[in-house]
Amino acid sequence: MSNVFGDQFRVMTFGESHCRAVGAVIDGCPPRLALSEADIQPQLDRRRPGQSALSTPRQEADQVTILSGVENGLTLGTPIGLMVCNRDQRPGDYKEMGTIPRPSHADYTYQMKYGIRASSGGGRSSARETVGRVAAGAVAEHILRLKWDVEIVAWVSQVGEIICAEADYSELKRSHVDKNDIRCPDPAVAERMTRLVSDVKEARDSIGGVISCVCRNVPAGWGDPVFGKLEAMLAQAMLSIPATHGFEIGSGFQAARMRGSGHNDAFVQKGNRLGTVTNHSGGVQGGISNGEPVVFRVAFKPPATIGQEQQTADFEGNETTLAAKGRHDPCVVPRAVPVVETMAALVLVDAALKQQMSASMFPGTE
Amino acid sequence: MSNVFGDQFRVMTFGESHCRAVGAVIDGCPPRLALSEADIQPQLDRRRPGQSALSTPRQEADQVTILSGVENGLTLGTPIGLMVCNRDQRPGDYKEMGTIPRPSHADYTYQMKYGIRASSGGGRSSARETVGRVAAGAVAEHILRLKWDVEIVAWVSQVGEIICAEADYSELKRSHVDKNDIRCPDPAVAERMTRLVSDVKEARDSIGGVISCVCRNVPAGWGDPVFGKLEAMLAQAMLSIPATHGFEIGSGFQAARMRGSGHNDAFVQKGNRLGTVTNHSGGVQGGISNGEPVVFRVAFKPPATIGQEQQTADFEGNETTLAAKGRHDPCVVPRAVPVVETMAALVLVDAALKQQMSASMFPGTE
Amino acid sequence: MSNVFGDQFRVMTFGESHCRAVGAVIDGCPPRLALSEADIQPQLDRRRPGQSALSTPRQEADQVTILSGVENGLTLGTPIGLMVCNRDQRPGDYKEMGTIPRPSHADYTYQMKYGIRASSGGGRSSARETVGRVAAGAVAEHILRLKWDVEIVAWVSQVGEIICAEADYSELKRSHVDKNDIRCPDPAVAERMTRLVSDVKEARDSIGGVISCVCRNVPAGWGDPVFGKLEAMLAQAMLSIPATHGFEIGSGFQAARMRGSGHNDAFVQKGNRLGTVTNHSGGVQGGISNGEPVVFRVAFKPPATIGQEQQTADFEGNETTLAAKGRHDPCVVPRAVPVVETMAALVLVDAALKQQMSASMFPGTE
Amino acid sequence: MSNVFGDQFRVMTFGESHCRAVGAVIDGCPPRLALSEADIQPQLDRRRPGQSALSTPRQEADQVTILSGVENGLTLGTPIGLMVCNRDQRPGDYKEMGTIPRPSHADYTYQMKYGIRASSGGGRSSARETVGRVAAGAVAEHILRLKWDVEIVAWVSQVGEIICAEADYSELKRSHVDKNDIRCPDPAVAERMTRLVSDVKEARDSIGGVISCVCRNVPAGWGDPVFGKLEAMLAQAMLSIPATHGFEIGSGFQAARMRGSGHNDAFVQKGNRLGTVTNHSGGVQGGISNGEPVVFRVAFKPPATIGQEQQTADFEGNETTLAAKGRHDPCVVPRAVPVVETMAALVLVDAALKQQMSASMFPGTE
Repeated sequence: MSNVFGDQFRVMTFGESHCRAVGAVIDGCPPRLALSEADIQPQLDRRRPGQSALSTPRQEADQVTILSGVENGLTLGTPIGLMVCNRDQRPGDYKEMGTIPRPSHADYTYQMKYGIRASSGGGRSSARETVGRVAAGAVAEHILRLKWDVEIVAWVSQVGEIICAEADYSELKRSHVDKNDIRCPDPAVAERMTRLVSDVKEARDSIGGVISCVCRNVPAGWGDPVFGKLEAMLAQAMLSIPATHGFEIGSGFQAARMRGSGHNDAFVQKGNRLGTVTNHSGGVQGGISNGEPVVFRVAFKPPATIGQEQQTADFEGNETTLAAKGRHDPCVVPRAVPVVETMAALVLVDAALKQQMSASMFPGTE
Repeated sequence: MSNVFGDQFRVMTFGESHCRAVGAVIDGCPPRLALSEADIQPQLDRRRPGQSALSTPRQEADQVTILSGVENGLTLGTPIGLMVCNRDQRPGDYKEMGTIPRPSHADYTYQMKYGIRASSGGGRSSARETVGRVAAGAVAEHILRLKWDVEIVAWVSQVGEIICAEADYSELKRSHVDKNDIRCPDPAVAERMTRLVSDVKEARDSIGGVISCVCRNVPAGWGDPVFGKLEAMLAQAMLSIPATHGFEIGSGFQAARMRGSGHNDAFVQKGNRLGTVTNHSGGVQGGISNGEPVVFRVAFKPPATIGQEQQTADFEGNETTLAAKGRHDPCVVPRAVPVVETMAALVLVDAALKQQMSASMFPGTE
Repeated sequence: MSNVFGDQFRVMTFGESHCRAVGAVIDGCPPRLALSEADIQPQLDRRRPGQSALSTPRQEADQVTILSGVENGLTLGTPIGLMVCNRDQRPGDYKEMGTIPRPSHADYTYQMKYGIRASSGGGRSSARETVGRVAAGAVAEHILRLKWDVEIVAWVSQVGEIICAEADYSELKRSHVDKNDIRCPDPAVAERMTRLVSDVKEARDSIGGVISCVCRNVPAGWGDPVFGKLEAMLAQAMLSIPATHGFEIGSGFQAARMRGSGHNDAFVQKGNRLGTVTNHSGGVQGGISNGEPVVFRVAFKPPATIGQEQQTADFEGNETTLAAKGRHDPCVVPRAVPVVETMAALVLVDAALKQQMSASMFPGTE
Repeated sequence: MSNVFGDQFRVMTFGESHCRAVGAVIDGCPPRLALSEADIQPQLDRRRPGQSALSTPRQEADQVTILSGVENGLTLGTPIGLMVCNRDQRPGDYKEMGTIPRPSHADYTYQMKYGIRASSGGGRSSARETVGRVAAGAVAEHILRLKWDVEIVAWVSQVGEIICAEADYSELKRSHVDKNDIRCPDPAVAERMTRLVSDVKEARDSIGGVISCVCRNVPAGWGDPVFGKLEAMLAQAMLSIPATHGFEIGSGFQAARMRGSGHNDAFVQKGNRLGTVTNHSGGVQGGISNGEPVVFRVAFKPPATIGQEQQTADFEGNETTLAAKGRHDPCVVPRAVPVVETMAALVLVDAALKQQMSASMFPGTE
């Protein structure tokens, strides 16, 4: 019951690693939006495995097909079915894992929850599940860009101990991020990160990282108080991405060390709107966007599936060792960049549609 | 549209700082649960302002009344109405803020969203909003304790730069946490924290902090894959608490620095269940609880309302200064401890009820 | 989990017959709406028991209190808490029913569902449950009237075999309906109905009836295709009212007897819009309003609680007789008139808010 | 936003008349259910056009493909993607309707709502939309049958003025219903109905009808009070089927004519449960099933698309005539029989899963 995201722009995703297809259905996409597969494919291509030496060699063309909801290049206001066929399936690689749950993977918890699990590759816990989200998120982004000129750019800001100092994100573009395979906009840092990932891969190990994300041109007024705070929805969205362990907005955990006098974002006139001098709030105050860039960071753990031999126990509790074969990424953050952007887009479009409605009802007092 | 939390155990909260009452209605509480106001009042008392010199002197008895859904000491399965009357109202204190939005507070964003805002005290962005949650959360906790013996304990683990080294949380109880006003179980650290908050208060400033939380005896199998992952729901729940800026589960942001070989939680037989040697996963794998303690941390910013004079702008964009009068906490974390526990309880009870249903349908393969 | 109605204008109701209070919380009411208790009280007064010799003598003032969400006469956009205290409680009247489930009442099914039931008076199956709805519905109606000039008028069109020929409803007002206690706008028919209800009451029996309802000035475009069709939502709404057994829109069951050539509503220009010559569609085509009046009918069964002695069985299956004491209406339709209007208003305001959002997104092709 | 049905067993459907595919995704199907395409195909075959001379000659094989959620013949607990490709598309047939909205069809209202509409054949208002529901409903039925032995049988009980006297439905099976093309279990009545439909078709006209439905072996306790009453959910479900105009449960509109003394269903011991002597309640009391058969009736209007020339207006308001070409059913009720069963199954499985959860929480008082 948890394969649906969003209230107004509602996405239901489907598909495992080794079934016929993965995809999503969008319910609530406004009518009369110009849309074709070409608007969706680029983010799928950025998410796709096999793009570089840094990622799993699993080969998937990941061509999206629009099944419904679009006619003559315009959305009808009806559900948009999006499908990507699975092609490269090697369940054989995962055979041993049938009796030994991979440490820190979902094999054990799926078995405990469902009393059954996909025979291989992790089922819905596989990164393959994110294909449907990314397809739907591309539609969300498309709306945000056309209607409000919102720009969402995520990048790799940390791999292991290597950190990319928070650059000025006011002009950062995806083209800067995509200049290298690791997706870090600072070329020198990117090179060090790349070398680290190669070393880790060589050692049949894996490594964690952090993705930072900025959403520019988000108007003031998006997000709902209390349980639907913009940062709360972003937190849910980001922690729903496989392998994530943390989320922070604006000053994040650093805020715990600060005093109000240093942390408060003073107001100042910026053109024809009220802005803030600093942005410790990360663009959100009281759960509602304030017109400044929405900025957040997401922590990813090192992938659980590693080639090194690990001491562990099988489902029966017997001590054993496991050395994963299969295909797997030594570090997920480069490929997770479009997934972070996707989830941000799904959160923002939902908030935008809600505010669109509320704002138009009764004249304001100002 | 964001004042509802949960799917099965669904809570709708209501109330601002200065209206007649705050409260909540619970839809979906199972029938035949022994329940009275005495099961709810203790957490409200722990959340209540005016408990110590560290918090706002606003005086509220915060006595809860059960309006409906309980008869002869048992729940009926019908909605449980919970109400706490507002008593101590001093809207005068907030007058100046009518023209000057408080920096890093929600005055500006509420105005931009709604074109109107509660005349004083922040409306639904006020900490007073959390009364309804805590009342409902106490019912959730009560169910979790009776049915599954789940224990949820949160504590202050950081104030400013003062950090309480992650103690062994396997035996930590609320009684340990409540031994001091700052709610840090390590007495020496608590004393340093208390002194820091006093200094900050003296300086008419405020300070941030971190709350850690452990949920023990959560059975394996709670939480839904994909968008309803247990950590995703916890992240939304925690970031919905006023003044929060970050959430991390298990190894959290530290995971970004680690390698899989060091991060993976090896399985090992523990009594009659499979457990893990380490708990970097924080009790959750693939979005589903694995039977280990669920452990997470929440970052709080320093409260925005401070007595110090701040340079800022009014709603018209004119430069001005603001020095808040009113009543406010120099540090929210001590009073936020029961709110963190509340939100954890609301997430867990919802996951528990869902799993209760699914597990009973068709016989498993084991 | 079924005490919530609506997606955008979401109402959660609470309260049984004999608890402290009944009421509702509205989540999603737009901000800046002028609102006071005086906008809500009139419909509660029309629903109230004890209005005439035709209804139950239970005495309840049913004064509504706005607990939250309104300040200085304007809605804040935050949840609106609405409460009506219960006063006249005579649980003693219902004692016998503790062991004998009333035939065609909910005593038995509540016991089977919950393993417990409100000690008296039917709990949430009592007509008292509708107080919360009517309070919330009055707010919905208020919005519809202010923003779109929508007028909703329901009336008693049948009691037993006495039928009020479908009058021209284009000008019918509540003032016409309220001219008599039975709430039938045709005075001659009303008199016959009133006499019938008196006779039935005399015989300690009860009688069924039909309520018709028209919603004028509903603009074209409200209602969503497929599961959220306007008529589907109206059907759910109406069948959620206690004692209802049927719903029909436009030509209703009569449509089964007709041919398309006679049933189709031909289009014709009406002022500056396209209208239809006939209105067999009841103002809705394909689930979406077409600008014609929305017209429907709701069937009510005779109340189950009657004073006559009935042969039945107790909870243990033993044969017995039951003659209800307590207070009860011999015919519910007069008092159900505002409840039907309420549910229509809740459906329409939800559809209106949804369309408000969708319509404003991308420019149309016309 | 209205293409989702159900809370626990949640179905999202997609697809228009002339897009690539129609289908559904099920979120919340329990794991470990034996399921294959063979469990789904039969109901799709019964719904399929072109089965007899009575229906549209549109030819569609309507072969369902399970895209995801099933492995080795068992459900995984993950979303089940169901797809049926569209094949026989003749948009040319609908060209004239581009400028003239078909009377009583959804052409006009879709245009008013969306500012765009599917170029032909009615988009989501087409009966083709029901393919996705029927596929998902077959899975729901499969669960109900395996777990609770629930049997759902619908049949044509009226076409035009020809009525099939309510037969004893306690033993009625689908095999009886399918003995003739009109799907009326009484062979003599069926023949008269068939002749009537042939005559109507000959006259290039259409005719309405009624479908009756019985759900046997529904245990007591399903359905939620207030807005989620079992009859309310059935009413929404049935009125969401294209061309429906009315719903009644048990005694239905006839109840309006009756007295309580004659209408009340007296309790009586039946084997090891309490049953009722009569079933005017239609198996539901207070919104909750009572263990008796759930019985209801659904009214269908005559199809709007007819070959006869009709006087009407075009979108610009100019008077004109329209004679539909295209393919269309003269009477929808025979093909709507499996759709009614489908929607009943979707309502029941959702209620069943909810009760499954609630019932297992705290021990009852009996």
